[in-house]
This record gives sequence, structure tokens and C-alpha cells, in this order.
Amino acid sequence: MVTIKELRREQILSAATKIFSEKTYHGASLKDIGDAVGLRKSSLYHYISSKEKLLVEIVLGALRAMDKGLAQVENTDLTPVERLRQIIREHVKFQVEYREAGSLFISERHIISSLALAEVSEIFERRDRLLARTLKEGAEMGLYRPVDIRIVSLAILGACNSVLLWHRPSGRLSYEEIADCFFEFFHRGLSVTS
Amino acid sequence: MVTIKELRREQILSAATKIFSEKTYHGASLKDIGDAVGLRKSSLYHYISSKEKLLVEIVLGALRAMDKGLAQVENTDLTPVERLRQIIREHVKFQVEYREAGSLFISERHIISSLALAEVSEIFERRDRLLARTLKEGAEMGLYRPVDIRIVSLAILGACNSVLLWHRPSGRLSYEEIADCFFEFFHRGLSVTS
Repeated sequence: MVTIKELRREQILSAATKIFSEKTYHGASLKDIGDAVGLRKSSLYHYISSKEKLLVEIVLGALRAMDKGLAQVENTDLTPVERLRQIIREHVKFQVEYREAGSLFISERHIISSLALAEVSEIFERRDRLLARTLKEGAEMGLYRPVDIRIVSLAILGACNSVLLWHRPSGRLSYEEIADCFFEFFHRGLSVTS
Repeated sequence: MVTIKELRREQILSAATKIFSEKTYHGASLKDIGDAVGLRKSSLYHYISSKEKLLVEIVLGALRAMDKGLAQVENTDLTPVERLRQIIREHVKFQVEYREAGSLFISERHIISSLALAEVSEIFERRDRLLARTLKEGAEMGLYRPVDIRIVSLAILGACNSVLLWHRPSGRLSYEEIADCFFEFFHRGLSVTS
């Protein structure tokens, strides 16, 4: 059961995401956010304790959603190849669905890191382990070349993470098509050729 | 012949790069920069007109260096495969050598875009055309698969650009080794397999 207070918080987070994205984090004030949801700054403090905390909540909300999506991939019985496809798809989907939160994470990284380093690190470490294990199992099964797993993982993640910088909702391709093109490119880059 | 004023400007740009990187752009003041080079704020204005302009000069300086490196690759007679290797190497080198300027470009993108959009766009368009032409020629010569050149280019650039987020000077691999690993991965991802 979602309480009124929780609904209100969701509404504030959603408005703040939009306003930070339009005016930049530094350019936006709590007053702007209050105005958007019809609350005075003093009432806003009933739901959130500071602009920094609001930023952290937005970014953590997005990262937790990605973490959940990747946990589902991890808990499904898939071949390494199919798992790689799903990891890439989850990442590209995340960049598209949480574009604003993702941009805030990049531009205000130092604030996030100073307030939520432990949780952010855990989420990224889980993701890195899943991807590394996938490439390793692919190599053990003779499907993938033995590569520098760390560097290849970083290349894959760097490509997927960059989607938020250039993807437009009105773009030529859906996120699934982008993810499939990436998968094909990386899968072939890893495959053992005879 | 470099004038004293030019030398002084270089010194200010170098100090500002370091200070913006340490304190963030928003957290650093012109006074901090003046202190670092032994100039009062009023004297600093003899060399630079504002903090924003200083930021733009730093980022443009880095982008112009990348542009120059890529122009050299373009003007050398190379096969598409060898050209791809050099493009990747230039990009990775850029991320490592201009790490601070690159980070400023990411975090303060909106300021750069509002003050130097035309030049930044031209540099990126030249880079995009060079990479696209390389992949296209590779396909025409039967070396590379016919791929969605735009999406594959964005994957390659996204991976290369991410290097600045994780590379440490004390890291396990040199920039050349990272670039070679990336090239091998992408080259195989593009190659026609029989």
C-alpha cells in the first residue's frame, strides 16, 4: 500500500528530475521544484531534507532499477552468449529510460560519490562481476576468445553508457535495435573464428 | 615566437585545469586560480575575461589537439584497417592526456555548448566523417561487414571516450595497450568471417 506521503515524494522526485535536467542541477533551486508541485519550500522539507539528497535519491532510484533488471538476467538460465545479449539490452534500455538521471549521475558524480558511494559501488561491482563472469564462461565453453576481460568489459559498458549522450526519443532506431546492433558487434568481436 | 603574455596565459590555463579538476568548476573561483599563479583577480582579467571563457579555452585547447591528431591520421596513406587502429589510438591517447579537460567537457557540457557550439560541432563532425569513411571503405574492400555505420561508430567512440572515466596513470596497462585491445575487439567485430 503506497501512502500519500510516498506518492507525494514520487511526484517531487519526478518534478525535480525534469527541472534539474532543464536548468542543470546548479541552476535549479528548491523553490523551482516546490513551484512545480505546488508546495512552498518550507513544506517541501517535510518530504526531502536538501537539494543534494534529492539529487542522490533520483540517481539511486535509477541505479536500483538497473540493478534489478541485471539481477533478473543473472537469475535466468541463459547461455553466456544469450546472457551477454540481455546485459547489453538492459544497459541500453536503462540509458534510454533513465536518461535524465543518468546525465545527472555523470555531471554531478562528485556529489553522488560523496553521499552514496557504498551503494553505488556495490551496484557497479555486481554489474561488473556479472559481465566478467559471462565473458569468462563464454571463453571456458570455447565460444569466446580469451580476452583481457576487464578492458573488453569497459569497452562494452562505455559504449552502452554513451547511449544517453546521443539517443533521442524521436531517433531512427528503437532501443532494442540499438542494443541488437551493439550485441552483434561485440559478440563477433569476442567470437572464436576458425 | 611566443610572447610573455602567451606564456602567462598558458600558465593560467594549466593552473585553472588543475584547480577546476580538484575543486570542480562550480567550486573553484578566479581567486583560487589567481592565487595559484601569483596574480590578483584584477590582473587575471588582463589575460582572461571570465571563468566561463577560461573553461571554454581549456576544453577547446584539448579538442583542437585531438582534431590535429586525427587530421594527421586522415592525411596519412593507410588501409581502412590501419586507419581504424590509428583513430582508436588517437582517441584513447586523447582521453588519457587530456583527462581533466575531457572531464570538464562532460560535466560542463551545457556551458561549452552555449559558448563554442560551432567549433565543437565542426571538430566532432570531422571526426565522425573520418570514422564513417573508414568503416565504409573497409566494407567496400570486402574486409568489413556492412554494418549500421552510425551505431557502430557511436559504440566505438563511446568505448574510447569512457577511458577518461576509469584510466589511472598508475594503471596496469599503457594507453597503447588499452587502444590495441580495443582495436582488436572492434576490428574482429567488424571483420567478415568466412
